[in-house]
Amino acid sequence: MTRPITFLSDYGYADEFAGVCRAVIARIAPDAKVIDITHGLPRHAVRQGAVLLANALPFTAPGVHLAVVDPGVGTERRPVAVRVGDEERLLVGPDNGVLALATERLGGGVEAVDLSASPHRLEPITSTFHGRDLFAPVAAQLALGSPLAEAGEPLDISTLTRLELPDPRVYPDRVVAHVVYVDGFGNATLNLDHEQLSSTFLRLGERVAVHAGTTQIKVPFGRTFADVGPGQGILYEDASRSLALAVNRESAAELLGLTPDDEVVLSPAS
Amino acid sequence: MTRPITFLSDYGYADEFAGVCRAVIARIAPDAKVIDITHGLPRHAVRQGAVLLANALPFTAPGVHLAVVDPGVGTERRPVAVRVGDEERLLVGPDNGVLALATERLGGGVEAVDLSASPHRLEPITSTFHGRDLFAPVAAQLALGSPLAEAGEPLDISTLTRLELPDPRVYPDRVVAHVVYVDGFGNATLNLDHEQLSSTFLRLGERVAVHAGTTQIKVPFGRTFADVGPGQGILYEDASRSLALAVNRESAAELLGLTPDDEVVLSPAS
Amino acid sequence: MTRPITFLSDYGYADEFAGVCRAVIARIAPDAKVIDITHGLPRHAVRQGAVLLANALPFTAPGVHLAVVDPGVGTERRPVAVRVGDEERLLVGPDNGVLALATERLGGGVEAVDLSASPHRLEPITSTFHGRDLFAPVAAQLALGSPLAEAGEPLDISTLTRLELPDPRVYPDRVVAHVVYVDGFGNATLNLDHEQLSSTFLRLGERVAVHAGTTQIKVPFGRTFADVGPGQGILYEDASRSLALAVNRESAAELLGLTPDDEVVLSPAS
Repeated sequence: MTRPITFLSDYGYADEFAGVCRAVIARIAPDAKVIDITHGLPRHAVRQGAVLLANALPFTAPGVHLAVVDPGVGTERRPVAVRVGDEERLLVGPDNGVLALATERLGGGVEAVDLSASPHRLEPITSTFHGRDLFAPVAAQLALGSPLAEAGEPLDISTLTRLELPDPRVYPDRVVAHVVYVDGFGNATLNLDHEQLSSTFLRLGERVAVHAGTTQIKVPFGRTFADVGPGQGILYEDASRSLALAVNRESAAELLGLTPDDEVVLSPAS
Repeated sequence: MTRPITFLSDYGYADEFAGVCRAVIARIAPDAKVIDITHGLPRHAVRQGAVLLANALPFTAPGVHLAVVDPGVGTERRPVAVRVGDEERLLVGPDNGVLALATERLGGGVEAVDLSASPHRLEPITSTFHGRDLFAPVAAQLALGSPLAEAGEPLDISTLTRLELPDPRVYPDRVVAHVVYVDGFGNATLNLDHEQLSSTFLRLGERVAVHAGTTQIKVPFGRTFADVGPGQGILYEDASRSLALAVNRESAAELLGLTPDDEVVLSPAS
Repeated sequence: MTRPITFLSDYGYADEFAGVCRAVIARIAPDAKVIDITHGLPRHAVRQGAVLLANALPFTAPGVHLAVVDPGVGTERRPVAVRVGDEERLLVGPDNGVLALATERLGGGVEAVDLSASPHRLEPITSTFHGRDLFAPVAAQLALGSPLAEAGEPLDISTLTRLELPDPRVYPDRVVAHVVYVDGFGNATLNLDHEQLSSTFLRLGERVAVHAGTTQIKVPFGRTFADVGPGQGILYEDASRSLALAVNRESAAELLGLTPDDEVVLSPAS
């Protein structure tokens, strides 16, 4: 039975790029179900893609997971396929970090191959569209059950690219966190998750002072956007169970000028 | 046999929201066909979502119809599933009006359940992403044939939220209508449908004066955009068989400053 | 066995147009696999749609290929279905040129029908949404195996609309080419393909002077964007094996003010 394929990229929706990759998959594996996670990532946003992929995959059925955010396409960065420890999932994409967080969250890499000379690639392979010419055909063959070892040359999993993300710093009177993702509603996810919260002063129902750049606002730590009035800010645990900032019906990222990696300082609103 | 699922939302295409909902459905009901109506609705546009859903569903196969435009997610607004009178269709979404016009057009609600404590929900359920944690799994279970009564607690269908839309006013020398939808081409649909037209002075081929705000233009009542030259306005019956305003190759909404609920006065262009 | 359908349009993602067409197809041919090439073409961009379709289809499985970019919907332009010489592919769409380049690339038209009075159309057919009312049902019936001859009235294939694109002019000391497509990354494809390159002075690794309007830049002829630093321009063979201009991590189209049909003059960067 053909395995399902999830597909994430920064190809956007204006062009045929994602569609042609799907067409290549359908030609090789007509019965493969392809689920688009999104193709609307900001261009070349490897880190945001890595965060989004790691958050999405636990909700998908095990299968082949294709992720193409690839500013270095055609250069020496390796194209790879990685088997992770959990549920026999296979990740396919460039080895530039976009697969790193999902690999880690799903049990770590247990086997990997370099796809540079994959027998599954389309010929003539182009230098600029490895999604179509390399990653899609490899994903399709893996979905059909072709062994990982036949997709490329074995590589040492300890050499796979990792992502270094900033760590939050927790003090008795403040928490220094960082923006890891800004969604299309302008909600900003911070690098502070459910488990870490208990070691801080942050408690549901309390008010918190939020410093970002030169801006400061005071917001409640609530459950959902609509716990505050339209235009009001709120701190909450988002759907990835990380702390996040939102403004009900408006954009927190715009109001506070937040972009990924920005520092945000939280303190009790005395 | 698994029933098809249609899916409408304001999740947009930048993020993984719609994709993750599809992944959740695929995990529960691998054979379910999911047809995306659109995820590009303006954020929180409950009324526009309701109009669009009601216009789209008569063209879809009967099945499960998921619609998530949910500014009040996580608050006391009820999540619901509704069986309508026509063709055994099941509508799933928040009870904030987004399902109201489709329910009405498809024979009215005949059975409904409150999904707040649905056994189908994912645990831990978040307060901000009921699409993923509640509505998608319920839709998937219903597609598999699970009875509606097992998806939640029965509720009185007379308590389902209705949408109050303005009524057009027809006079011998003018018609006061309202914008109900503006599409991506800038065409503006008015709340005056095929059946109501015959009681007005509006006749195909005649010229009509259109007042909107402080702007007035005179346009023919034609059949299609291309009946007038580029940049010229036209009044026509659109694909939902409602009266609409367009400008060939340009945007009527922009030219006339039209947004939903705006009043438009039509009179004979003497 | 139901044949796959590819679907390209300028319907965009804000509205239900593409989704409703897919729903109509699913109602008629529930087992048909529909692959969206893209719906994000610029509105009414018949020529860009034609280029994109011709580049995409060779990568898709043979089947039914639906393309709707239709500024003249409802007027005298003919709706058509065309069988081409290669692999029994069937193209469906308006006869305004959007099918022309793909038809040519896929072996030329060998049989065609005028769909104006197709028995497959939905009734009442509207004047503004032939995608839903005519093209989608015809594509679905053809996918099910219904004969082309039963979809409409036979027409003389020599009367199908052709696209006249400018030809590049090659001189010993310069090449005058034209922009045929600008993608969402701002990369601009020129009308000079792999085969034509050998008759020019353009050689991989050499530097080239690029004149566009009043702007001139000098760029290397490289293999991929990342062969130059961020913000640097490059001339390369793109994924359609045509010459193209890019700026690494930025937009060549914006930098040089390029839009389709613009003239670009290439000369050796002495």
